[in-house]
Amino acid sequence: TEMKLSGQEEFEVSRACENVPTGELDNDSGSGPRPDDPLDAASGKLGDPKDLLLFIQLNELLGWPQALEWRETGRWVLFEEKFEVGAGRWSAPHVPAVALSSLQKLRSLLAKGLVLLDCPAQSLLELVEQVTRVESLSPELRGQLKALLLQRPQHPIQTTGTSPCRGSAQPREASRDEEAPLKEQRQNPLRQKLPPGTEAGAVLAGELGFLAHPLGVFVRLRDPVVLGPLTEVPLPSRFFCLLVGPPTLGRSYHEMGRAVAVLLSDPQFQGSARRASNLQDLLAALDAFLEEVTVLPPGRWDPTVRIPPPKCLPSQHKRLPAQLQEATRPSARRRAPAEDPHGCGPHAPGPELRRTGRKASWYPSDFSDALHPQCLSAVLYIYLATVTNAITGGLLGEATDGAQGVLESFLGTAVAGAAFCLMAGQPLTILSSTGPVLVFERLLFSFSRDHGLDYLPFRLWVGLWVATFCLVLVATEASVLVRYFTRFTEEGFCALISLIFIYDAVGKMLTLTQAYPIQRPGSLAYGCLCQYPEPGGNESQWTSTKPKVEDDIDLGLVNASLLPPPECARRGGHPRGPGCHTVPDVAVFSVLLFLTSFFFAMALKHLKTSRFFPSVVRKMLGDFSSVLAILLGCGLDAFLDLATPKLLVPREFKPTLPGRGWLVSPFGANPWWLSVAAALPALLLSILIFMDQQITGVILNRAEYRLRKGAGFHLDLFCVAALMLLTSALGLPWYVSATVISLAHMDSLQRESRAGVPGEPPSFLGIREQRLTGLVVFILTGLSIFLAPVLKFIPMPVLYGIFLSMGVAAISSIQFTKRVQLLLMPAKHQPDLLLLRHVPLSRVHLFTAIQLACLGLLWIIKSTPAAIIFPLMLLGLVGVRKALEWVFSPQELLWLDEPMPEKERSIPETGLEPEYSFNRSDSEDSELRYQPKAPEINISVN
Amino acid sequence: TEMKLSGQEEFEVSRACENVPTGELDNDSGSGPRPDDPLDAASGKLGDPKDLLLFIQLNELLGWPQALEWRETGRWVLFEEKFEVGAGRWSAPHVPAVALSSLQKLRSLLAKGLVLLDCPAQSLLELVEQVTRVESLSPELRGQLKALLLQRPQHPIQTTGTSPCRGSAQPREASRDEEAPLKEQRQNPLRQKLPPGTEAGAVLAGELGFLAHPLGVFVRLRDPVVLGPLTEVPLPSRFFCLLVGPPTLGRSYHEMGRAVAVLLSDPQFQGSARRASNLQDLLAALDAFLEEVTVLPPGRWDPTVRIPPPKCLPSQHKRLPAQLQEATRPSARRRAPAEDPHGCGPHAPGPELRRTGRKASWYPSDFSDALHPQCLSAVLYIYLATVTNAITGGLLGEATDGAQGVLESFLGTAVAGAAFCLMAGQPLTILSSTGPVLVFERLLFSFSRDHGLDYLPFRLWVGLWVATFCLVLVATEASVLVRYFTRFTEEGFCALISLIFIYDAVGKMLTLTQAYPIQRPGSLAYGCLCQYPEPGGNESQWTSTKPKVEDDIDLGLVNASLLPPPECARRGGHPRGPGCHTVPDVAVFSVLLFLTSFFFAMALKHLKTSRFFPSVVRKMLGDFSSVLAILLGCGLDAFLDLATPKLLVPREFKPTLPGRGWLVSPFGANPWWLSVAAALPALLLSILIFMDQQITGVILNRAEYRLRKGAGFHLDLFCVAALMLLTSALGLPWYVSATVISLAHMDSLQRESRAGVPGEPPSFLGIREQRLTGLVVFILTGLSIFLAPVLKFIPMPVLYGIFLSMGVAAISSIQFTKRVQLLLMPAKHQPDLLLLRHVPLSRVHLFTAIQLACLGLLWIIKSTPAAIIFPLMLLGLVGVRKALEWVFSPQELLWLDEPMPEKERSIPETGLEPEYSFNRSDSEDSELRYQPKAPEINISVN
Repeated sequence: TEMKLSGQEEFEVSRACENVPTGELDNDSGSGPRPDDPLDAASGKLGDPKDLLLFIQLNELLGWPQALEWRETGRWVLFEEKFEVGAGRWSAPHVPAVALSSLQKLRSLLAKGLVLLDCPAQSLLELVEQVTRVESLSPELRGQLKALLLQRPQHPIQTTGTSPCRGSAQPREASRDEEAPLKEQRQNPLRQKLPPGTEAGAVLAGELGFLAHPLGVFVRLRDPVVLGPLTEVPLPSRFFCLLVGPPTLGRSYHEMGRAVAVLLSDPQFQGSARRASNLQDLLAALDAFLEEVTVLPPGRWDPTVRIPPPKCLPSQHKRLPAQLQEATRPSARRRAPAEDPHGCGPHAPGPELRRTGRKASWYPSDFSDALHPQCLSAVLYIYLATVTNAITGGLLGEATDGAQGVLESFLGTAVAGAAFCLMAGQPLTILSSTGPVLVFERLLFSFSRDHGLDYLPFRLWVGLWVATFCLVLVATEASVLVRYFTRFTEEGFCALISLIFIYDAVGKMLTLTQAYPIQRPGSLAYGCLCQYPEPGGNESQWTSTKPKVEDDIDLGLVNASLLPPPECARRGGHPRGPGCHTVPDVAVFSVLLFLTSFFFAMALKHLKTSRFFPSVVRKMLGDFSSVLAILLGCGLDAFLDLATPKLLVPREFKPTLPGRGWLVSPFGANPWWLSVAAALPALLLSILIFMDQQITGVILNRAEYRLRKGAGFHLDLFCVAALMLLTSALGLPWYVSATVISLAHMDSLQRESRAGVPGEPPSFLGIREQRLTGLVVFILTGLSIFLAPVLKFIPMPVLYGIFLSMGVAAISSIQFTKRVQLLLMPAKHQPDLLLLRHVPLSRVHLFTAIQLACLGLLWIIKSTPAAIIFPLMLLGLVGVRKALEWVFSPQELLWLDEPMPEKERSIPETGLEPEYSFNRSDSEDSELRYQPKAPEINISVN
Repeated sequence: TEMKLSGQEEFEVSRACENVPTGELDNDSGSGPRPDDPLDAASGKLGDPKDLLLFIQLNELLGWPQALEWRETGRWVLFEEKFEVGAGRWSAPHVPAVALSSLQKLRSLLAKGLVLLDCPAQSLLELVEQVTRVESLSPELRGQLKALLLQRPQHPIQTTGTSPCRGSAQPREASRDEEAPLKEQRQNPLRQKLPPGTEAGAVLAGELGFLAHPLGVFVRLRDPVVLGPLTEVPLPSRFFCLLVGPPTLGRSYHEMGRAVAVLLSDPQFQGSARRASNLQDLLAALDAFLEEVTVLPPGRWDPTVRIPPPKCLPSQHKRLPAQLQEATRPSARRRAPAEDPHGCGPHAPGPELRRTGRKASWYPSDFSDALHPQCLSAVLYIYLATVTNAITGGLLGEATDGAQGVLESFLGTAVAGAAFCLMAGQPLTILSSTGPVLVFERLLFSFSRDHGLDYLPFRLWVGLWVATFCLVLVATEASVLVRYFTRFTEEGFCALISLIFIYDAVGKMLTLTQAYPIQRPGSLAYGCLCQYPEPGGNESQWTSTKPKVEDDIDLGLVNASLLPPPECARRGGHPRGPGCHTVPDVAVFSVLLFLTSFFFAMALKHLKTSRFFPSVVRKMLGDFSSVLAILLGCGLDAFLDLATPKLLVPREFKPTLPGRGWLVSPFGANPWWLSVAAALPALLLSILIFMDQQITGVILNRAEYRLRKGAGFHLDLFCVAALMLLTSALGLPWYVSATVISLAHMDSLQRESRAGVPGEPPSFLGIREQRLTGLVVFILTGLSIFLAPVLKFIPMPVLYGIFLSMGVAAISSIQFTKRVQLLLMPAKHQPDLLLLRHVPLSRVHLFTAIQLACLGLLWIIKSTPAAIIFPLMLLGLVGVRKALEWVFSPQELLWLDEPMPEKERSIPETGLEPEYSFNRSDSEDSELRYQPKAPEINISVN
């Protein structure tokens, strides 16, 4: 657009106005050190922010012949809004579709009408004087018309009390005073939505019986001025158009008025109209507009249907003349590979992977940026997830014979997480003991137990080696290898982690139902009683009968009571009977709680995009969905008051394993050479941690999240290595970036623009990047040891339900899932994805099937004794991706995945970009590739 | 359309072709005695069935200059399908949007090109000869072009094995043999989708370097002939268009080819092109087409976006010239009030309410029409609903001290239902003891108990009186009063019945949880044991301790066993302890079953409209949703094997009340004058039954269901009265049409057309109107007394879940629910309902609020002792509706409700129809009113 405007000296509008940001631009955006991507700006936003907006209003002349009055019946900024006279309300903004015939009628009316360019009028009165100076009108008619034009129009914002001068056809001189904007005009809420610098265009149309011929006047004012009450918003008017005539043409004046408004709301026509020096220029601009319009045939489309605004508009860039497009293209072309072709972020190799020291400059803002209520919700949400994770991580205590218990889990999470949030390059990352690392640790413990090794010292050495390896990786800047993690690798890993999450949530739920078995009615033995030693019987006789209790049904003569088992034991009795060991209803009720919290959380998240409730309420409900689901679960649980398993938080601050201090001794009972041998498992673990850490980093730093403060792959890995040392020495669990929780963290910190111009959807502005939410989460996790009295009311099944919803949300977010769904859809019902326009369906399915097979293989390896080589297999994904280049053509991989780095460099030579290789058949949708989300249209007509 | 065509002698196509039904017309429709509504036919179907369809194919010339070949890249019938070269598949059908510039380029190319109308060519060879006879071409070029045109084009249906003569630029004489359609062409599945009589149009476009100037040829063949392998479907071609030229114009040949195809697929242009006698006629037709197109501005719409076909298309009627429209309008106008303005059926007073004796003529088909697998699903579904209803109706036995037990309920349901299905006018109706009648009966019993009356004889007299009153109503043809039941009354009643359904389902579920209480862990007493009389103790001592058992916790020395309570009792013991009375897990598990079956049934119903699975599978899953949900529930229940309450069916055939025979004695212990006094409650009950029966009838006979066999209001009421006599005499429950189950019955019998021409949605054809499903349902209900061994596996909570889904489906189907939802939506997020375009939102909300208030009042009255006047209140709804005429303007009521009969007649005078009263501002969407469903567009761009 800048290209277009440069060198045009006759351009009249002051250039200062052009740089005024429109409402959709957030104050932050563009100010960061990350270079603004021109394509991004052009395609992600509606219109071009550099264009000046026009507010166009159509005042229609109604009531001929008895009670003439001007009434506002339509308005345009980006889209059209129609005033529904019957309903007395504005329609929703919609794409302004006009009949071609109206545009043509308008053209011929303007061609023989009056066109005043750079009219010097300074008020409505002067303007009306100029406009009515048409030769064909007799002085009497001229006076009548003038009076009519000075009539105050009816705006929907006017209160019914202040009735305007209806039907007064007498000429009335409007004084300067009367031209001042009305109170209603100034208080119009629409005014706030229009960016400063917006000018107005007034279109007056309607049938006027006393005219013999149609009259068309088009005026461009030299100096825009507020034309009194003419427009509902008191903006300086730049354009004025009058279309009146005898009623022979029926509604065509209205339609011609709409046509003018649509023309003026088009940025290109508007620009031409601003530059036009005579009628011919104006008509040429109209013809240029017609050159570009899309036509819908009458028999296949109902013109009365209103098309809602699309979420993405084509960039104005595309509409430039071909030569200019060529001139601007190379820069776009160079940047294209970094941009995501499918709306599902690539890693942006380059600046992020170099040490720049610029993290420090963001440090103060990392705290000040957190001052927003949304952060509170994020803290609550992530805190609960982290605590639950810490508890379930603490269950590892059982698997490791208490070497790592709940307290270690809490302490480690708090210390490692907080330290990471304070120091890391990407503080939005949440550390946790992730699935693969937990699996590895469990394997390590089994190994050392089977070989009679002292676990914690052995583990210390493994940790030391891992830290060393990681520091070497940092020193050699090995993180640039991240460039080889294409979407294939990312999706495989992300799907695996999400599945582990889902599997764990369901699995833990099932474990619960096993812990609280359901008593079948068919069993022979039933019930429970509390048996006391018989008055005569002694303790030994009492115990001797004990082993037989379970089998015996007939107890004979016993001294019994009906006290509940714990009370019974306290009073010296002994609970007997199968009923004493079952806690009724808990298992089924837990399932109910689990499902309730899962579905409730999902439903609240969906509510965010529904039509119900004002957007503030919806956003609030959506943001707090997890917290609300937990509260609902707690409420249900408290209402039924069953002994469901609750969240248990440790109270005492000491290592779980009795008799060990906080510091792990370096050797213990192990031979010295073990400290060297530990390097071998450490190598595997290093690969695992590198992959886990860096893939998560890549996912979190996707371009689609619009992070401004950049990533810090090297710094993050350094932090993880340092924390590895600390946790190994203290015997705490190992921590690495947790994909799912970190994604949930980012998700809960999304910034969206407030509603802008009518019809413009709220746009995603980025993430609240700061260190505070994470820090507070981990401080709270540490303090949770003291919050036990409150947290003990949260039932575990509810938390498992929330975990399930997190896993489902994570796995739904990847393109892989969409492709798996395609497998279940018949071809003719598939959505119109760009991918499917360019790659044969069988190839898409083959790619998906290969991914599924890799995922299945990873899952199997994770579950078998061979799990120790799991990290290598994860690395193998990169190899599989490389091998895919023999199976799929580069074009196919470009749509299905991303090119590997070598290819990336060779693009200009081989012409890999679809835009160039397919330039004949695909030029019509090549532009779509550069939109952050490929527009996929569903028009459902109910 | 008929108007348009009449008197046009030059119209060339044989008229016989015109009457060939298109694929979307079912063989049944239009053959019934019910007059076909012309508006209905015009607006409900795509296009006009009288128009001849054209299959248009675009063959594009690709590969210049090395390897020239023709490749099919697009095709059109109603909508456009693009062949995706990269993906090797056809796109989904979409609205053919073209650039205006392409249409204009086409116009100028045709204007100076070759136009052959009524070309006598009989083969491709002859056609090519004619086409290449252009002066500007040298003989050499002509030969090259001829050879190129005779090249066999690449169709996507061709197997890759049979490679066509690629790039053979030598002139090659195509023999007659070679012009025979290929096997692939004849086997093309598309052929079946096109109605017989479809002709083809072939468009050939592309850049051809050896030409100096663009060449445009348009041919209309005098006798359509199959042009060999030119089109993928071997249809006789009527039109042929060639657009080639030097490559300076880029892709414009492709776009011009699309433009021709779009033009030809337009029925009006096609008609003109068939009639055109010279170039001027053709260009005039193009200009006439342009007059009608809708234009989308370039800056606000992305032309590469594909718009899916709308579900409703504007009727071609609308496109007639204004004079013709006026001529055809009066008939439409007279019929308009009977037509539903909002797509949510009015009663059609008139033919249905007169005794015509025509029911008999349908009788044989009432059985033959039932031969469809869908009926099996309907029988299963409705049978289960009816049996469940019979069981829950049998629960009335408790409320009436056994006067009406489960057996009576089964017997009555079977006898009354089957008799009604055999004799009634509307055999789709399912009889049942509906909510309001049950409420009334319960009140009647309380009254007679409180006043010491003998219930059954009193009830007999009430029944006799009701039957008399109903017969009087039938004799006086009072059913014409149904005309006063506007949508307001219908919706109020339907919402009330649905709410009773939902309330009962949830209520019964809660009753279950009370029957199986959950034992709280906090209670002091716990457990259960089986106590035997002490060896020394006698029976009396045993019983004396009994009352204290519940309070005592300490039992002292007892002779105990751990047998379950039933076994304990059998062995002469006595179960003691609170645990004996609770059945653990059943209550919570029942809730789980209830929710599972409800959500599963709902999810399966929604699957029917999802993208997943082939349509056959989806339809099957949707149709059998209830049965599948019941099976799932039974499976879950069997898996856990808990003692959930199951469906119990009586086994013995005798009245529940001991000591009474099947015939009720006319007086019993009652005084004689009671038989006269019974007329008073009978009056109330008659009102109730009249309302209940007739409103259900009105709802079932809505125009939107497209019933062909007509209603039978008088006959139905007569049947109900006769059955009233029978059931009263036998002491069985009273039966009346059940709204919710009958709607579910209709819903499960919907007929839909199979997929027609690409892009055409399957259209609703009507209901399988027959007597067999209902009859079988009631015979099965009667036989259920013997099916007890199978039915006993169905848990009651599952059936309650299905009931809930039926209630929810019924209440979601009325417009009232949509308006209630509007209350929760901010104005700017509301859907673009036509209602909201014409009535102020506050008035809509007021109307909804009044309906809500009425509903609340009815609910309260139903629940209080004043419930006996409930029927009067129901009648009061009609009065409230009448009173609304003072609050709302006639226009508002026309949109919100329907006019009452008096008003209806005065419409022509007062100009009540919005089309006329608002003819200025609303003409643009007046046509929409006559569409069965107002199109409400949602374009979601993800």
